[in-house]
Amino acid sequence: DSESGLIRATLFPGDGIGPEIAEAVKQVFRVAQVPIEWEEHYVGTEIDPRTQSFLTWESLESVRRNKVGLKGPMATPIGKGHRSLNLTLRKELNLYANVRPCYSLPGYKTRYDDVDLVTIRENTEGEYSGLEHQVVRGVVESLKIITRQASLRVAEYAFHYAKAHGRQRVSAIHKANIMQKTDGLFLKCCREVAEKYPDIVYEEVVIDNCCMMLVKNPALFDVLVMPNLYGDIISDLCAGLIGGLGLTPSCNIGEGGIALAEAVHGSAPDIAGKNLANPTALLLSAVTMLRHLELHDKADRIQDAILKTIAEGKYRTADLGGTATTSAFTEAICDHL
Amino acid sequence: DSESGLIRATLFPGDGIGPEIAEAVKQVFRVAQVPIEWEEHYVGTEIDPRTQSFLTWESLESVRRNKVGLKGPMATPIGKGHRSLNLTLRKELNLYANVRPCYSLPGYKTRYDDVDLVTIRENTEGEYSGLEHQVVRGVVESLKIITRQASLRVAEYAFHYAKAHGRQRVSAIHKANIMQKTDGLFLKCCREVAEKYPDIVYEEVVIDNCCMMLVKNPALFDVLVMPNLYGDIISDLCAGLIGGLGLTPSCNIGEGGIALAEAVHGSAPDIAGKNLANPTALLLSAVTMLRHLELHDKADRIQDAILKTIAEGKYRTADLGGTATTSAFTEAICDHL
Ligand SMILES: CC(C)[C@H](C(=O)O)[C@@H](O)C(=O)O
Ligand SMILES: CC(C)[C@H](C(=O)O)[C@@H](O)C(=O)O
Repeated sequence: DSESGLIRATLFPGDGIGPEIAEAVKQVFRVAQVPIEWEEHYVGTEIDPRTQSFLTWESLESVRRNKVGLKGPMATPIGKGHRSLNLTLRKELNLYANVRPCYSLPGYKTRYDDVDLVTIRENTEGEYSGLEHQVVRGVVESLKIITRQASLRVAEYAFHYAKAHGRQRVSAIHKANIMQKTDGLFLKCCREVAEKYPDIVYEEVVIDNCCMMLVKNPALFDVLVMPNLYGDIISDLCAGLIGGLGLTPSCNIGEGGIALAEAVHGSAPDIAGKNLANPTALLLSAVTMLRHLELHDKADRIQDAILKTIAEGKYRTADLGGTATTSAFTEAICDHL
Repeated sequence: DSESGLIRATLFPGDGIGPEIAEAVKQVFRVAQVPIEWEEHYVGTEIDPRTQSFLTWESLESVRRNKVGLKGPMATPIGKGHRSLNLTLRKELNLYANVRPCYSLPGYKTRYDDVDLVTIRENTEGEYSGLEHQVVRGVVESLKIITRQASLRVAEYAFHYAKAHGRQRVSAIHKANIMQKTDGLFLKCCREVAEKYPDIVYEEVVIDNCCMMLVKNPALFDVLVMPNLYGDIISDLCAGLIGGLGLTPSCNIGEGGIALAEAVHGSAPDIAGKNLANPTALLLSAVTMLRHLELHDKADRIQDAILKTIAEGKYRTADLGGTATTSAFTEAICDHL
């Protein structure tokens, strides 16, 4: 907390539509009188002329100090040797769990109206180790790394989350029938943690079967926890069930209690600066940040206002089939606060 | 071809409900006067008392000699050191491509009515290498292996299949933004093959995005080709869109022109022997076998009869919400021939 009594939070508006949708969040927070003071830093594909860097030390320090932040979409710098900035942030800040609540939005019709689940993805290892090499010409391999430490950590977080949010069931998603050692270790860690939560039902579901069940009957699931790549795949599948990445919030949990919320959709350079972007994913991500800060009243009010605006359907952005501008949609949310 | 003018095909009825649904196929083929003579072998979890083996040399030789076969579900033998029999067959017969046509069944309602795609999965390497080890206590790794040879082979098959079946587009599914070397090599091979098929549209889709698009709008896809694990995941997801593994055919293509069709659902021991199983997946798999043999007339007649029976809805097995027995359902199909 700063001297003003306000909570300092880092804001990375990001690239493309990032600044516009970040503006929407600032406006909604202002109107809702959220006691947050933004500390804004630029992280993105434009090189900082002073530092010649995509990502400054100050930006990282800001998150480490504030322990809470919000990031918009970031494009991947072009040219050899550049990792995605998203991955760099995950690595630098040790963002070990990626949490994506996913629920059907009342009034926004898709083929599903009964989705209400949360995917919790291990975010630091697995298939994302970056360890790959050519064995001989025409034969390449990548290493998937699973550690006891990272698996326990994300499993702990998943059960902690389930309990804190009144959820009944945790499903560990895996392919241990094929990858007996790696996914086997992941499951072993989940089982160990599950024993400490006798009130929460624990089950294990093979990833192929999980995908089939999700598209047939997503209501079967509650909290899902899984290794990195499966989380990448399943969280996007789930987002698709309720309408896409433009509507789903995401929050990264890091060591030392860091929470960095983020919109996981792209930076949409084609519509950037045109007042056409849908700020919903970033707004709902900002709400998860408020919940992390236990500002549940503010979180509820803002979430309700967003959902009501979408449900009414009068102000919808183009991606949802409407004609509203970003600012008209944002105004409508503010009117509902 | 045997002396009788009949084509010899291997039949592995398999475990659980396998024998009943294989019986259904035999009956339908008999009534439709398909010029096939079955060579039946037992492969499954019951140990052969004579050979003390789950899988005899004769069974494998039968497929190698006939070059065409049909297999029912096989359970995995219990006890340490037993690989899944499915995987063993893939390995022994070098079944390099797994082909799963997936289309909405007229009259069988799911949330989707516009699915018509084919997944083609590399079936021999990738994440299924079986190479895993503990690096130190609490740290394990698995190796994903991608080779130029296997990638070219499955890509060739996918484009060949697309052309032979009048399909317009091949999408290569990957995660080369993360696994640049392994999935990168896979894509490179697909691109090389694509150049030889200028009439077929070629595109590349990242797996997470692919899953999102599939659940939002499966009509965007036509033929999909991908490494082993992605194929495992996406083929089950697609099966879920149209009702589940009980309804989707599958065919494995092996070196030397082998085609081993298979039902990919489980052996359902709980209902085995009770005349309750749904033979649709095995029947439709048998149809893919006929197409492989270019017996298109027979294939069309049988496929139409199956689809009509399901569409009418009078005879449906329990898994499809009906009360028909396996034999009543099979009779109904024969009546439509
Ligand atoms: C952009 C890409 C590297 C990233 C990932 O694979 O993790 C994205 O898909 C995500 O889910 O945040
Ligand atoms: C049973 C299992 C080993 C198998 C696989 O993973 O390939 C199955 O899911 C399949 O798709 O045939």
